[in-house]
Amino acid sequence: MTDSAKNLVSVSIIGGSGYTGAELMRLIAKHPHFRLVQVVANRNAGKKVEDIFPHLRHLNLPDFITFEEMNFDGIELIFCALPHATSQEIIIKIPDGMKIIDLSADFRLESIEEYERWYGQKHIAHSLQEKAVYGLTEIYQKKIKKGSLIACTGCNSAATLYPILPLLKEGVITNDNLTINLGAGVSGAGRDAKQNIIHAEVSEGVKPYNVGKHRHIAELEQEFKKASNKKIDITFIPHLLPQNRGVIVSIPLSFPASLVHKTLEIFYEDSPFIIILPIEEVPATQHVRGSNFCHIGVVSDHNKNRSVVISVLDNLIKGSAGQAIQNANIMFDFDETSGLLESPIFP
Amino acid sequence: MTDSAKNLVSVSIIGGSGYTGAELMRLIAKHPHFRLVQVVANRNAGKKVEDIFPHLRHLNLPDFITFEEMNFDGIELIFCALPHATSQEIIIKIPDGMKIIDLSADFRLESIEEYERWYGQKHIAHSLQEKAVYGLTEIYQKKIKKGSLIACTGCNSAATLYPILPLLKEGVITNDNLTINLGAGVSGAGRDAKQNIIHAEVSEGVKPYNVGKHRHIAELEQEFKKASNKKIDITFIPHLLPQNRGVIVSIPLSFPASLVHKTLEIFYEDSPFIIILPIEEVPATQHVRGSNFCHIGVVSDHNKNRSVVISVLDNLIKGSAGQAIQNANIMFDFDETSGLLESPIFP
Amino acid sequence: MTDSAKNLVSVSIIGGSGYTGAELMRLIAKHPHFRLVQVVANRNAGKKVEDIFPHLRHLNLPDFITFEEMNFDGIELIFCALPHATSQEIIIKIPDGMKIIDLSADFRLESIEEYERWYGQKHIAHSLQEKAVYGLTEIYQKKIKKGSLIACTGCNSAATLYPILPLLKEGVITNDNLTINLGAGVSGAGRDAKQNIIHAEVSEGVKPYNVGKHRHIAELEQEFKKASNKKIDITFIPHLLPQNRGVIVSIPLSFPASLVHKTLEIFYEDSPFIIILPIEEVPATQHVRGSNFCHIGVVSDHNKNRSVVISVLDNLIKGSAGQAIQNANIMFDFDETSGLLESPIFP
Amino acid sequence: MTDSAKNLVSVSIIGGSGYTGAELMRLIAKHPHFRLVQVVANRNAGKKVEDIFPHLRHLNLPDFITFEEMNFDGIELIFCALPHATSQEIIIKIPDGMKIIDLSADFRLESIEEYERWYGQKHIAHSLQEKAVYGLTEIYQKKIKKGSLIACTGCNSAATLYPILPLLKEGVITNDNLTINLGAGVSGAGRDAKQNIIHAEVSEGVKPYNVGKHRHIAELEQEFKKASNKKIDITFIPHLLPQNRGVIVSIPLSFPASLVHKTLEIFYEDSPFIIILPIEEVPATQHVRGSNFCHIGVVSDHNKNRSVVISVLDNLIKGSAGQAIQNANIMFDFDETSGLLESPIFP
Repeated sequence: MTDSAKNLVSVSIIGGSGYTGAELMRLIAKHPHFRLVQVVANRNAGKKVEDIFPHLRHLNLPDFITFEEMNFDGIELIFCALPHATSQEIIIKIPDGMKIIDLSADFRLESIEEYERWYGQKHIAHSLQEKAVYGLTEIYQKKIKKGSLIACTGCNSAATLYPILPLLKEGVITNDNLTINLGAGVSGAGRDAKQNIIHAEVSEGVKPYNVGKHRHIAELEQEFKKASNKKIDITFIPHLLPQNRGVIVSIPLSFPASLVHKTLEIFYEDSPFIIILPIEEVPATQHVRGSNFCHIGVVSDHNKNRSVVISVLDNLIKGSAGQAIQNANIMFDFDETSGLLESPIFP
Repeated sequence: MTDSAKNLVSVSIIGGSGYTGAELMRLIAKHPHFRLVQVVANRNAGKKVEDIFPHLRHLNLPDFITFEEMNFDGIELIFCALPHATSQEIIIKIPDGMKIIDLSADFRLESIEEYERWYGQKHIAHSLQEKAVYGLTEIYQKKIKKGSLIACTGCNSAATLYPILPLLKEGVITNDNLTINLGAGVSGAGRDAKQNIIHAEVSEGVKPYNVGKHRHIAELEQEFKKASNKKIDITFIPHLLPQNRGVIVSIPLSFPASLVHKTLEIFYEDSPFIIILPIEEVPATQHVRGSNFCHIGVVSDHNKNRSVVISVLDNLIKGSAGQAIQNANIMFDFDETSGLLESPIFP
Repeated sequence: MTDSAKNLVSVSIIGGSGYTGAELMRLIAKHPHFRLVQVVANRNAGKKVEDIFPHLRHLNLPDFITFEEMNFDGIELIFCALPHATSQEIIIKIPDGMKIIDLSADFRLESIEEYERWYGQKHIAHSLQEKAVYGLTEIYQKKIKKGSLIACTGCNSAATLYPILPLLKEGVITNDNLTINLGAGVSGAGRDAKQNIIHAEVSEGVKPYNVGKHRHIAELEQEFKKASNKKIDITFIPHLLPQNRGVIVSIPLSFPASLVHKTLEIFYEDSPFIIILPIEEVPATQHVRGSNFCHIGVVSDHNKNRSVVISVLDNLIKGSAGQAIQNANIMFDFDETSGLLESPIFP
Repeated sequence: MTDSAKNLVSVSIIGGSGYTGAELMRLIAKHPHFRLVQVVANRNAGKKVEDIFPHLRHLNLPDFITFEEMNFDGIELIFCALPHATSQEIIIKIPDGMKIIDLSADFRLESIEEYERWYGQKHIAHSLQEKAVYGLTEIYQKKIKKGSLIACTGCNSAATLYPILPLLKEGVITNDNLTINLGAGVSGAGRDAKQNIIHAEVSEGVKPYNVGKHRHIAELEQEFKKASNKKIDITFIPHLLPQNRGVIVSIPLSFPASLVHKTLEIFYEDSPFIIILPIEEVPATQHVRGSNFCHIGVVSDHNKNRSVVISVLDNLIKGSAGQAIQNANIMFDFDETSGLLESPIFP
């Protein structure tokens, strides 16, 4: 071990075969304070990373191993990028004393009942759930700093909560219901082969999915309630877009743009990754692609008493792997931007 | 002239350089009752159609001419596919006695004041406006049959009005305001080179445009008022999608899906091109691409007292050239489906 | 049965779950002389066509059945759109007396040895192979007319053979080797979920595949040899393109453009679907999308003794389902263009 | 000026409105040794960078200025990202003593006659041409180190020269002619609005362009001759691909893959950005997107005496802005990878 490596936090990833795992590898590989020691990918154990992700060939990452082959000695931080249900099964097997950042949905819901209702299966790690911290970075920064298990926010939820939570917390909007219109890129559906995400099904078209049924509704209801102290009825309309990355959320509000805009500007003035655009400017997913930034725009409606708030982020970064690393930075008391300041890739 | 040609209606197109003009040529070329005699395209006059649209090479269409070169003898029907403002300047010069189908916005608004307010310029053809019929086929079929000047509905407006007008007319929804969330393919922005529609700006991203300001709001307000006898406040949120064709509209409603679905099914039971999907199924733009069909889905919200209605159509066909030809079929007493029954092209 | 139906040829499709099956249904549904009686799709038997292909909902097609449920009474023509290997297993079970058009690779190779070498499995229908006719329509029209089993050409092969075979037959090119550079849309890889064709893998990128190993090399070698009486060494470089439909082939030639162009023009002057562009014009896949046309361009190289010939077609139509129907038209002595004259859909 | 800023090289960009200019800004903003002092963009002078490139909003870059407003005091390095012809007009006005890296074609051709023949206009800066160094980094590293004016290689040329020059230099291939089959993303055509690059023209299709006429032929002929001491006849077949970034070049060779592969591996063993894939593996543009890497694959042909070499790079980075910065690193004796080690963004 070199001198400089001695000061680095030793990190492992569990779940390296998916897009989120790949983004974690990419981001950690250049992180100034983290050292990637091992990557678990049961299905691909024994393979080289570049056999699965040729774009990471130059990084000389360690080969994939099984969970059983993991060595926990000296590991201080584990990112878990597994599907929900599998995630909790693995996390309960991890020895005490390591910080865990889970990117799945398994620990996002404070209510076990709600989890079991929305995800249709038993939760097997109640005590872990009790100590889990919801990982929406800019909102729960203080809790995250002290947390040992962070449940990262879903990508769609993050794009929705960033513009809305401050408005609810500050009492600027008083809605009983909110219409959340959402568009999401295909990478959010993962890398496993499914007919509905093959190119010929998705390209050159847009299709709604899980309208009124999307599981992120549970997270949104939970967080809206915590911020406003009341139940807010959510109409959630997600669309699958013909693009790889990006989430966009457009929400109509019964309040003027200036009020909404001012509130968001103040709320996020110290948040380096949440950028409130000048009033009346609209964001676009291609302008945050490949970055940890979330752009939020506020636009007046035709009726000036109303407005529309629009937010965009890269689902794999600010909506997932980047969010996870930002949380890790906070947990280890590094600058929250460490390793995350890459500019978006446009065009 | 052959015997069969004797019975065909002689048709001209004014405005053949754009995508809508191309679709008119394509559809009329195979229409059983129309004969395309001449195509005006001032900018491209003297050129062959295949020099501008290589995909129409096999049709052996007449070369483009200027408006001045037009010969009105024997012409019974004119399709006008010009930009707004230019359209009225040309149409006032057309001799009496011909049926005109205008695809621009120039004659859509019954109120001259509203036109001048939304389009920022004088209307110079008031008397033509007075006799114009709004061309939303399935709704205004009887007026269209007797009309001499049809103002075809905008593509975004058509996708919005099809699901909503029956609900207002039947009193099934009683909203004072409606949120219309819309996604539109790039071809709706025309074929003229503009930086905001070049591939590198649009591909792999989604960007809202004209939020709260889109000119189709004027049409929507007009038609909503006619259907409901009251002013309905519209929050209109259009997004530019990374695809060439297709409009999708998603509208949340405070009424149960079953009621909405039943009403639409009954309303459109004799409309061959408006297809109400089985309840809880969602439509997709790729499933109407290249066709004159409009698919409408009605889905229950999480809160079963609420629902979402979603409609899709191909902006260049049912939203424009196909709609125009369907109107022409009605005006000349042909079967309204003549020349329009091509299935969508998927994938 | 109506009077008009009495004169229609009764047709069945075996293999209705894939894109080629869908295109056959779409095209046969509007064909003036064919009547689609039944569609076999073992995996989806019992389902409605619109459950699998929502874009065909308006056609009111018969529900999918199993092969065992097929009724051969009165059937005169069967299209078989199954994967290779499966195709021959099914076709040997079809009673005598029906014309069969196979879209798979199973009967394309005259040499059983070559088939077994390239496809890595036994051929179990030697006697059928002996009577099979290679279905490259414009080249084998006379044999197809008399044939009972047609083996349709692969989409990549068709795009390659159309420009090259006439040059070999007429002795215009005398190459011993040919470089065939090819780009193919994703739909050519079928509708079964495979990781390498999901949107996020394909979109915004291009990747070669099966370079030097593509099975269509066997067809090409066979046909080149038949046309030139010698073995031509083929370097075949296929690329997977980020688009759904379309094949493009670009082939450098050591002969001047004028000679190549003139030869192709003469050869195809009576072929309605093979369009030789004016010399020095290049074709584009988007200009044949959704149609049965093949566009061929011939361009001079920098060195005027050399040239490049480029051909494009829609892999699902001229490269597959459209080609099959054109062959059927010929077999039943209908105009070869019956049901196939739709113009390309652009943009 | 802070202490740390004192040690940074002061840099200006001329030509900040295009995609290449944007990439230069993005890359220089995070470069450890360069400080971006001013950006000239005549058309957009006075505007903020984020008004033109919203994805760079967080960088707080200096506003665009005119060339006349430039202050050369203390400037050590200028990147010039203007169109050809304009570039030389500006560069001759730059005071002596600054290092200049030109991304245009103006100084790439050693022969003024060739330049004037291919670009159809007078060259007005002969003496500058004489001292210009062709900027293909890995090949001309030593000359670049001592150079004062670097003429960066065109993106298509770079993708072609990387695999071929070593083979010519080492005498491994002895061809008199080479077929270069190329696919290029749309961003290579720049950001100015032109009809042929709007989304609806490009998306879902592929179209050859400038076949046998592309100006990069001149560069290729020059470099091939320098490497092999003979004239090599080039058949250059470029295709416009429906993707934003990426160049792919596929070249058939009459030599076995093992020989070609070994030669390239040895030649580039110390080049951090040129990655030779394991033999028989193919590269893909999506695996270098957003990075300075060039991936090269060598694959056996069906006939094992032949092979195909395939290279991919991101046209805006390794093909342009990244190449320019790599050259700058060398000129200022920094590690050549400084500021350029970002991994590709996939998916």
